[in-house]
Formats: sequence, structure tokens, C-alpha cells
Amino acid sequence: MIETPYLLFLGDAPDQLAAKVAQGIRDWRPDNAIGQIRLPGCGADVKLPDLTLAEAREKGAKTLVVGVANRGGIISASWKKVLIEALEMGYDIASGLHNLLRDEGDLVAAAQTHGGTLHDVRVPSVGYPIASGVKRSGKRLLAVGTDCSVGKMYTTLALDEAMRKRGKKSTFRATGQTGILITGSGVPLDAVIADFMAGSIEYLTPDNDDDHWDMIEGQGSLYHVSYSGVTLALIHGGQPDALVICHEPSRPHMRGLPGYKMPTLEMVRDMALPLARVANPKCEVIGVSINTQHMSEDEALSYLEGVEKRMGLPAVDPFRQGADRLAEALEAY
Amino acid sequence: MIETPYLLFLGDAPDQLAAKVAQGIRDWRPDNAIGQIRLPGCGADVKLPDLTLAEAREKGAKTLVVGVANRGGIISASWKKVLIEALEMGYDIASGLHNLLRDEGDLVAAAQTHGGTLHDVRVPSVGYPIASGVKRSGKRLLAVGTDCSVGKMYTTLALDEAMRKRGKKSTFRATGQTGILITGSGVPLDAVIADFMAGSIEYLTPDNDDDHWDMIEGQGSLYHVSYSGVTLALIHGGQPDALVICHEPSRPHMRGLPGYKMPTLEMVRDMALPLARVANPKCEVIGVSINTQHMSEDEALSYLEGVEKRMGLPAVDPFRQGADRLAEALEAY
Repeated sequence: MIETPYLLFLGDAPDQLAAKVAQGIRDWRPDNAIGQIRLPGCGADVKLPDLTLAEAREKGAKTLVVGVANRGGIISASWKKVLIEALEMGYDIASGLHNLLRDEGDLVAAAQTHGGTLHDVRVPSVGYPIASGVKRSGKRLLAVGTDCSVGKMYTTLALDEAMRKRGKKSTFRATGQTGILITGSGVPLDAVIADFMAGSIEYLTPDNDDDHWDMIEGQGSLYHVSYSGVTLALIHGGQPDALVICHEPSRPHMRGLPGYKMPTLEMVRDMALPLARVANPKCEVIGVSINTQHMSEDEALSYLEGVEKRMGLPAVDPFRQGADRLAEALEAY
Repeated sequence: MIETPYLLFLGDAPDQLAAKVAQGIRDWRPDNAIGQIRLPGCGADVKLPDLTLAEAREKGAKTLVVGVANRGGIISASWKKVLIEALEMGYDIASGLHNLLRDEGDLVAAAQTHGGTLHDVRVPSVGYPIASGVKRSGKRLLAVGTDCSVGKMYTTLALDEAMRKRGKKSTFRATGQTGILITGSGVPLDAVIADFMAGSIEYLTPDNDDDHWDMIEGQGSLYHVSYSGVTLALIHGGQPDALVICHEPSRPHMRGLPGYKMPTLEMVRDMALPLARVANPKCEVIGVSINTQHMSEDEALSYLEGVEKRMGLPAVDPFRQGADRLAEALEAY
């Protein structure tokens, strides 16, 4: 658990995209962040007050979150200066960078001297169990995708928000580093050891109230040969009652796999559902979430209408339209 | 790569089953082992000459292989004495125990002093890549199962032997610690980090001659919710041309999962084949391997005949009958 509130470190992010972790926190958990801190030349802005480390600390900030991707894979000297100063002031630091905080001797030393914690959310901090397969109480929804990076995290965050606005019990369950930084906890599934993958998802989504929904962030795709094992561990560890299929229609081929065609929504449904029913015979596909960012409004609406007719399921772009219609489908479940 | 020949350490194995790693080496790679060494009270015997460490060393033994499971999960004082003496004589040590050799200070010290290597085959020693999905030359067969521990390793070892006896090019590819100890190399897939599972199998089964078969040891089952992700990584990383379905008919339920029924052979075929064809559209199921150890000879033969008729595929128990008919099916492929 990462302590809130955060101060968001945007560093020298060249553009807005490089600060997508900070933007995610700003969009989905605005109450978690009280400000941003930027270095000279920063081209990103998540529209929070620019605060110094001291000002934010005074306002109660507990953790400096690295909300930016680093170029070249190293933590630069200019970043280091800020991170060490933050530790000296009593901050914890949280990061999802490949270059781990704990591998930097000067950060480790400063953290030890000043009693701060270094959260490398890319690395599991828990010894997960092997999955037992025992049926848990409460309800679970999992986002499955035609491919990687088609909007699974966005969809489950939007559904979680829509459910809570309707007064329903819901918790977003993060399975990747961005989601973990946004909500302060979760399982970095891609870094879990093979035998414990499904068990880590059981651990993440324990017994709950009968009317509570876990909105489980999906990873990879059953059709993405590099990561499909991770996807299946989510399906079997999560034992979902409901699936939402996520898709981005403009992809020419699977991400990073030029020789692999994208599957259709029907193919994902027909593969995921029998697999999901091994762990939960009642599982149903309740809707489709389409990332229409590369379409005009008219194109998008007409595409969604077509999908809805073809699949007989509500089809929405949660970014354009919100996830209310998916939440309705869940209530009807 | 573990150096051969081996001396097999059976310790104080209470019975033959506890020495199944040693027995596997004896059965499948007899040329790799020149003797066995047993402690007082040992109830196992793999029918190799009983040699002292010094005698075996004189005959050329390079590695002392721990061919026995340890009770209570610790390496006992009586084992330690032998292992340290072996290191002092210049042996390497190889082990698949959960209790790692490298976690024992006195073994590490003795290995360093005498220049020996400690092989913990349960832990990856390679930084595997992320799977690229690129089609590789050569042919690959993968054993998939209805459940864990139904005979997948045995089947692929037997097929490898049958193919080589027929003068065909074949290599058994180990994916678990017993297989790795038997052949001296492989990938301990259950200990690989999630993102690299499929990549580790690509690494294990690289480009090869067009008429060469990799016989890939299977793990888990698509229907075993604790380990199914590992199975799918094998299917997509291995991009098999051929599948053999393995089954043990006497199981009341999935291993370790009392609430989960065993799938039928047809269910495994219908789930595995479309998934395999994502990575290799030409993949076919070429046969069925049944572990009939709990049946009489008559029962077994009649069961196999029934399966053969039902599935339209050769069905054998490779332990009773050898794997020749599966090899024939592969040649016809």
C-alpha cells in the first residue's frame, strides 16, 4: 500500500504521453494527488498546482510518485537530485520504472537514513500462494482484449467509477504498474513467477460481499503469443462472473507481432468464455468496449452500433460515452 | 549444461518413489550415470553399482546429482556431509530440491574453495527474452494433458527414444526439474517470470533442421486453474506442429482441486488446437497417450481401443507398449 496523498513528479517529460502515469492518477484518483513538480524543459502538464517539494510536504504529501517514463532506461542525475531531496524531507517514493529505485545505491542510502520507503511497483512485494481454485464470495468482472494496450485498464476504471456513482459496491483491482500507482495497490502480474500467477489474482480478489464487484484490469490477450499465459492466469485466478471484451479497431496486426492478424470480437468471445467457465460455469460476456480514438464521432457511433447488432451486447467507447451502459448490463446480471 | 557422467545420490530415500529423479535418469539416460551412492536406511535402488565418492570420481564422474526428494524440505546433516565431501573431491552438484543448494552457506563455501558448481535446476540461470512469435524452422511436438502429472514427460521421452531408434532427428526438451536433471539442460518453466514464459520456450526450441523434431515436455493443463497459464505459454512459445494428448483415466478430480472435474480428451483437443493454431496454423493432434498404470493388461488394451475408435487417433500407453505408434504417426505428418 502506497501512502497518499501524492506529489506527482513529471521530470523532464518531453510530451504529455510520457507522463501517462501522472495523467492516469489525475484522471482516476484526483483526490490522491495534491500537485505536480516539473523540471526545466518539461513538456507535460496534468493541470495540478506546480508545487515545490517543501510546499507539497507542508500540504501533507506523503509520497513522491514518478509519473513519467524515463528515456534511455536510466534514472538521470537531474531526477536523482529531486528524489534524494524528497527522501531527505521524509517522502516515500513510488515508481514503475524498469530501472528499479532499489538498484540505486544513493537512493537506498537516503531512504535508510531518513526512514523513507522505496516502492518499486513493477516488482512483487508479496509471496503469493499457488491458486486453490476454491470459489470465492462476491462478484468479479475481467476485461479481456483482442490485443495488448487496447483499453482494458481504462475500461475497468471507468466501469468501477460508473458502478460507484450508481451507489454500487465496486473496487478496481490493478494488475499492472500504472494501475497500481493510480490506486496505490495491486499485483504486478507480468513480474510474478509462473507457478504463482493465478494465485496472485486469487490473493488480489478475495472473498467479498455478495453484491460487491471486483473490476479486474486485464493483461495481454489469449491471441498474443508473447503474453497469453498471463491472460489465462487472470481468467482462471480471477474466476470472473462477467467478461468485457476490449478492442481497438485500427490495428493492422497484433502489437509487436507483425505476422499475427488481430482476432475478431467473436473469436475472443468463443475462446475466452469456455476457458472462463472452467473456473466459473456461470461466466457471461456482458459487453464490448471499443477504443475509437482513431475515428471521427460519426464513424465511432456507427461502428459501435454495428458491433452491438452483431454481438447482441452493449458496445461503448467508455472514453467518449462513459461506461454507464456496461454498468447497467452488470446490474442486470 | 550439467556435466556428465553423474553419480546418483539416493540419500536415505524411504522408498523407490522418493528416488524418482534418479530412476528417471537410470531409465532414460543410463549412459549419463555410472553409479549410485546410498546412505544407511536407504530403501531405494536404481540398480546401478554402489560406489563411494572416491570410486566414482576415479571412474570419471563429474557431477553428484541429488536424485531423491528430501523430507521436511531441509537438506539434512547426513546429506550435507556427503555433499561437502563431494565438493572437496572436485564434483559439481546438481539438485532440483526446493531447498536450494545456493542458500546453504557451507555448500557455497565448499564450492568456492574447490572450484565446483552448484546447479539448482529449479531456478532459471538464463535471462530469457520476450517471445517474438517468429516462425522457426524444424518441427516441434508438445504433450498437453487433461491434468498435471498424467505422463507428459514420460510420453515425450518415450517418443524421443522411439524416433531416434528409427533413425530420425529428435531432441527431448525438458521444461521441469526432473527432465532437466535427466538430460542435463532445459527450462524450469514454473519458476520463470510471467512475461518471459513463452520466450523461454522459444529459447529452448530454436531454429533447427527441417526434419528435426523437438519433443517438448508439457506442464500443467489448460483445465488446471492453478497452472493453466504455464500450459498456454508452452503452446504459444513452442508453436507446435503436433500435439499428443496425455491422460490418466482413474483420477476422481483434477490434481489438488477437489471441486474440479477432469476434462475429456475431446475437451482438451477442442481447447488446445484452436489456441495452438494461433501460433502455428498447421498444428494437428497426432495421438493420445494414456497412463494405464491402475488397470490390468486387459482393461488397459480395451480402454485404449475405445479411445482409438472414439478419437480416430492412435492411442497408446508408452510405458506398456512403447511410443512406436506415435512415432509412426509423426512420420506420416
